[in-house]
Amino acid sequence: MYNLDEIGQKAKAAEASIRTLGCGVKNQALEAVASELIDRSAEILAANVMDIEHARNSGMKEGLVDRLLLTEDRIRAMAEGLTQIAGLDDPIGEVLSMKQRPNGLLIGKKRVPLGVIGIIYESRPNVTADAFGLCFKTGNVVILKGGSDAINSNKAIVKVIRQALEATGLAADAIQLIEDTNRETAAGFMRMNQYIDVLIPRGGAGLIKAVVENSNIPVIETGTGNCHIFVDETADFGMALDIIYNAKTQRIGVCNACESLVIHEKIADRFMPLLAAKLAEKNVEIRGDKKAMAAEPSVTEATEEDWGMEYLDYIISAKTVSGIDEAISHINRYNTKHSEAIITSDYANSQRFLNEIDAAAVYVNASTRFTDGFEFGFGAEIGISTQKLHARGPMGLEALTTTKFIIYGNGQIRK
Amino acid sequence: MYNLDEIGQKAKAAEASIRTLGCGVKNQALEAVASELIDRSAEILAANVMDIEHARNSGMKEGLVDRLLLTEDRIRAMAEGLTQIAGLDDPIGEVLSMKQRPNGLLIGKKRVPLGVIGIIYESRPNVTADAFGLCFKTGNVVILKGGSDAINSNKAIVKVIRQALEATGLAADAIQLIEDTNRETAAGFMRMNQYIDVLIPRGGAGLIKAVVENSNIPVIETGTGNCHIFVDETADFGMALDIIYNAKTQRIGVCNACESLVIHEKIADRFMPLLAAKLAEKNVEIRGDKKAMAAEPSVTEATEEDWGMEYLDYIISAKTVSGIDEAISHINRYNTKHSEAIITSDYANSQRFLNEIDAAAVYVNASTRFTDGFEFGFGAEIGISTQKLHARGPMGLEALTTTKFIIYGNGQIRK
Repeated sequence: MYNLDEIGQKAKAAEASIRTLGCGVKNQALEAVASELIDRSAEILAANVMDIEHARNSGMKEGLVDRLLLTEDRIRAMAEGLTQIAGLDDPIGEVLSMKQRPNGLLIGKKRVPLGVIGIIYESRPNVTADAFGLCFKTGNVVILKGGSDAINSNKAIVKVIRQALEATGLAADAIQLIEDTNRETAAGFMRMNQYIDVLIPRGGAGLIKAVVENSNIPVIETGTGNCHIFVDETADFGMALDIIYNAKTQRIGVCNACESLVIHEKIADRFMPLLAAKLAEKNVEIRGDKKAMAAEPSVTEATEEDWGMEYLDYIISAKTVSGIDEAISHINRYNTKHSEAIITSDYANSQRFLNEIDAAAVYVNASTRFTDGFEFGFGAEIGISTQKLHARGPMGLEALTTTKFIIYGNGQIRK
Repeated sequence: MYNLDEIGQKAKAAEASIRTLGCGVKNQALEAVASELIDRSAEILAANVMDIEHARNSGMKEGLVDRLLLTEDRIRAMAEGLTQIAGLDDPIGEVLSMKQRPNGLLIGKKRVPLGVIGIIYESRPNVTADAFGLCFKTGNVVILKGGSDAINSNKAIVKVIRQALEATGLAADAIQLIEDTNRETAAGFMRMNQYIDVLIPRGGAGLIKAVVENSNIPVIETGTGNCHIFVDETADFGMALDIIYNAKTQRIGVCNACESLVIHEKIADRFMPLLAAKLAEKNVEIRGDKKAMAAEPSVTEATEEDWGMEYLDYIISAKTVSGIDEAISHINRYNTKHSEAIITSDYANSQRFLNEIDAAAVYVNASTRFTDGFEFGFGAEIGISTQKLHARGPMGLEALTTTKFIIYGNGQIRK
């Protein structure tokens, strides 16, 4: 049995020293880790070769092998990521509000690290350095559990990071990797609430569901996206076509891609043929209801299942509706609470859509593809939360912090 | 088998209409519910008599029976609580920040309801009206699961609230009570993550642990308090004695009462006899380490277990330390992350204590008893969170909200 308690105890022991590091020290350490990753890239690449060979021998598809592959350039990009994180403002220590109570107590809310963060993720080994950088910048200790496919690469990257931290006089246990890849260890990792303050799963729907169902640690759920675009009766057709084309085809495998269209029935006859012609440029299949099919012969018939699908492919569904009410209720029923957009020229409908759609990000006249920590100006992203507690939508550094109340008194007692 | 799915579906169905209610409508409904509770107090009291009889017949202690007991006055207090909630500012709809991105997108963060909130709680039936009021004011639908002891009282209160809501034209399902009191139903309630956005347990350590271990719904943990007061070398003794006396004895059964003292060893000889004399006024037993015992003969010997105890009784532990370093590490090791205080005249130590103690509320020169939503000026409290996600410390109305990003564009697509 892999000793998870020992890992938990080491993380707790490192927590006190990491929590109170000043921003300057943290940035220097991030820079030192970045240099070390580049200096020792040969060592990391050698480990990666083992993962790649193992993957090919077990018949992994080349697309997935590519996700696993490291190169000099990719290691340099990893290092640059850390340098960029070093350049971001440190959210730790900010006092968000401080007010005097009638009894003279001065009560403020101070931004502090979460403590120990657990991250459980799948293939890409670059997540290893990235997750470390974001957690470390915010004064947190991190315990990582990567996928078994990338185990050798992850071990090598974590070794380099730990040694670089030690060389700058900091606790190496600011980052630990769970090296055992069996299922019981993964299950045990999700039950370490005596050591870990927050668990963040990054990966496919199956991984996220397993974590949500089994963890006793508070989880930040990062999720799937069945993102809708509603083309209202008053939409500018050119704008609608450009936005749908962008949201569907600019990158198909991402959670903020558009998967579902909702079309006002009064414009279906005119709009659907234009849409079909535009999406034909990328051979996108449109699956629609009866009215959508009647408006455009290339539309194939959608089943009930299509309304809830996250295709991650060159397929999109199209549902016609009688107006804003039906659009809102349809979207709130089938969406995954990620990103939803309306294309309209109508003021009242734009406001109703913003108010009544239940999702992390709601757009008027823009592509859903903008739901992203970098696009939102956070300078970094640890994931996109589709849950409602703590953080919702793209999560930057602030999502990795909590607050504590600090209270200045001069002898106050409660009457 | 009790039909939890039906309850979940009804809650989801009510969610859309409750989420978008204006503040005026919500306040009127709260006032209407308050009047109805008073008008129909006879009905509620009759139901309460059944619970009280059942409790006495099964040998419940009178102290606990009193927690269960309703009177005209207590129902009036319940109604006044709702009127007070009606008078609070509505946090829903506030846009927390809105900034323009280089591409012209205007991105803001809007405060919105969580959706469906589950609350699982023990005896006191007044929690029923209180929890409804806070959830409803913040546009949330609530599903309540009270203790079996109070089932008749809770049914009567919920019936009155539902009928009052209906009479004002609102969805009665804004509040539902799970009337079945068996354990499988409670366990099933904790696994309703397809319907419930957040689950808040209110009650003893056993209930909270069961929820944390078994829920697949995001939980806000409200917790126990092993609160410390550190009397530093430079403490004003008079202030220290007043604060400790207040924090220990003003109300012994609450989570923000002081349970543990940490005393600088250089002042132990002078301070301990004064402390013992002061606490003797309320017959408080002091359990200390060797140095504390040497300083004051009435101190009994503490065991390792005492350092972590939440007594909720006229008992306090006293540990001597060599200074601020040992005080901080002792407290961070044994505390429950609730409320901790330092009594000091030393600037550097006050700042180190505020920075390095890991707790929801950290005090300089004040009683830990102030950790409370009303004392902090929130005007209401749904509980005190001892976890780090979403809300930490006393939770007012804002803790029952989340945010969504609203984005105004004019045709932006991602490059």
